[in-house]
Amino acid sequence: MRYLHNLAVSHIATGAALLGTGGGGDPAINLLIARKAIETYGPVKLIDVNELPLDAWVLPVGGVGAPTVGAEKLLSWTEIDESFAVSNAALPGGAYATMPIEIGGGNALLPFVLAMRHGLPVVDADTLGRAFPEMQMSSLALDKVPMRAFSLADEKGNTCLIKASNPSWMEALARPVIDAMGGAATACAYACTGEEVRTSALHGTVSLSERIGRALMDRDVNRGDPLAALIAETAAHVLLGAKVVELETKTDGGFVRGGVTLAGLGADNGRRVEVAFQNEYLLATEGTSLLATTPDLICILDRDTAMPISTENLRYGARVTLIAIACHPKWRSAAGIRATGPRYFGFGFDYVPVEKLIGSTL
Amino acid sequence: MRYLHNLAVSHIATGAALLGTGGGGDPAINLLIARKAIETYGPVKLIDVNELPLDAWVLPVGGVGAPTVGAEKLLSWTEIDESFAVSNAALPGGAYATMPIEIGGGNALLPFVLAMRHGLPVVDADTLGRAFPEMQMSSLALDKVPMRAFSLADEKGNTCLIKASNPSWMEALARPVIDAMGGAATACAYACTGEEVRTSALHGTVSLSERIGRALMDRDVNRGDPLAALIAETAAHVLLGAKVVELETKTDGGFVRGGVTLAGLGADNGRRVEVAFQNEYLLATEGTSLLATTPDLICILDRDTAMPISTENLRYGARVTLIAIACHPKWRSAAGIRATGPRYFGFGFDYVPVEKLIGSTL
Repeated sequence: MRYLHNLAVSHIATGAALLGTGGGGDPAINLLIARKAIETYGPVKLIDVNELPLDAWVLPVGGVGAPTVGAEKLLSWTEIDESFAVSNAALPGGAYATMPIEIGGGNALLPFVLAMRHGLPVVDADTLGRAFPEMQMSSLALDKVPMRAFSLADEKGNTCLIKASNPSWMEALARPVIDAMGGAATACAYACTGEEVRTSALHGTVSLSERIGRALMDRDVNRGDPLAALIAETAAHVLLGAKVVELETKTDGGFVRGGVTLAGLGADNGRRVEVAFQNEYLLATEGTSLLATTPDLICILDRDTAMPISTENLRYGARVTLIAIACHPKWRSAAGIRATGPRYFGFGFDYVPVEKLIGSTL
Repeated sequence: MRYLHNLAVSHIATGAALLGTGGGGDPAINLLIARKAIETYGPVKLIDVNELPLDAWVLPVGGVGAPTVGAEKLLSWTEIDESFAVSNAALPGGAYATMPIEIGGGNALLPFVLAMRHGLPVVDADTLGRAFPEMQMSSLALDKVPMRAFSLADEKGNTCLIKASNPSWMEALARPVIDAMGGAATACAYACTGEEVRTSALHGTVSLSERIGRALMDRDVNRGDPLAALIAETAAHVLLGAKVVELETKTDGGFVRGGVTLAGLGADNGRRVEVAFQNEYLLATEGTSLLATTPDLICILDRDTAMPISTENLRYGARVTLIAIACHPKWRSAAGIRATGPRYFGFGFDYVPVEKLIGSTL
């Protein structure tokens, strides 16, 4: 157990933006909200997975919907409080702790805000280890933990408690509600016991995002080379140094979909790489060759600062570095690849781990 | 208090089909389900509004979605039981009785099925006095009774408990869920106290539908002239004897929308009347003249039997009688007309009571 203050939360925000692989919402806004909450309620208690009683309820929280909408339709206390109230009432005895549904992007910070408002600790774990665009893409769903106490709330006071017969039905029912709520909402969801967190959540990911953030932001740690510090922390593979030469983005059905074309710079001059996204960067290809694919993490970084750039912050002409990081082993299982691999998203490639793709042409 | 047996329920089904003004779902299927329930559980207890304790919860029930879908995607025990379970759990102490949300169409029979399965009485009242296509169109909403314990359930075991900041938000949030559930679902909704039922529900409408059904079906009552018996019971105005010469129907966004053109027969030879519908018949016009408009009840009857024909059972060439019946006075208030009048549905007419339109040309 330890307490997190302002600086730690800033590091988590940056690390989470990287693990968001372009999605999960811009952490900048939620960081402001988390700082305001720390100012009001004091520091946040972060507990280890092993500190959780086996029968205690953990109620994860996150924002859902299109990040482009979330960046303009700002998070409100109302939606956090109402979503918590509805889901918490559905848990016998109530929630003992909260945690991020996904560590990627602004969603990493929502549990801190909820924790401070409602006096709960945050568990150092999440259920994705990154960000993913659809709700059934969770390590809990992969292990068939039932989707309990799933609620959505918006800033207008509307709430919706959904029980679905399976995770794909949850996605099918919740997505149009999110759309009707204005394209973005807060979800308390995937309530699970301490025991289920131990067996099925991804452990230590809050601390991981803090270490990544520190590597990128703290000169004492990165000694002026944030990319090298990031590689040391995550074993990231650098795929390309480039600039953005084409960008196509469409917000519909609650998602930001599109693609970006990168033209190589310097040593990579003459190379041309396409990166496709649905909220998150999902697939990087060069001609007919696969460079990296979901569920491995594909990130686009600012070429100078190595700071991650989200899909909604991509701009024509930006100088960037394209990297990829091996995903959590859970996503590399047959079921994990079926749920989150390239074929699930409609791409005509089989999953190949990024470290096997380096230097190969398919 | 009285018990309703098979025959009474058959009469209610027919009367409800008439009050459904073309919508509310075909009662034939729900009648079979209600008969099966009577066979299994015995007769249904119907209680008068005045027999309700003032503080008892009444939990209305009804089917929602497109009737064309409901006719093929049959009602299941699962959706009735699950919707009741979810809404009932949201009511402190649970429900004392149920009643129809809308007396119009197959929805009149759902409370009987629920009542038998869960040992509740049915209140002789509803909240529309007819059928309407949207969920905020309820006498309870008109009187600003909060929309409590609103749940949707489908046959797959999916449920959704919605709290909306106002009735229009309820419609906006629930409609896409119904669509995702397959276009039709069961709703327990508008939970209200005995006191609210007394002040804001429409009383005696179950008995009214039974009397209408008896007038149409019982030769001892109608002496072979069901139309005359119907007029005697409801003060209906006969607008046209005709055949269906054009029919346009589209099922989308959870509704059946369209229009039917009627060409006059016999004494009405040469007349041509258009009836527009959105689940229910909403507007009857002849050239530029208004014949009748929502919220008054517009019904299309079989020319021989005077039995009501629903929008989804309209067929090219059918011989019909077009009638209109004055709606409940509550719908003729300024707020009632705003909520359910022709302008709400996008028609370029002001509401004029049907009895004032008879013989006039606008």
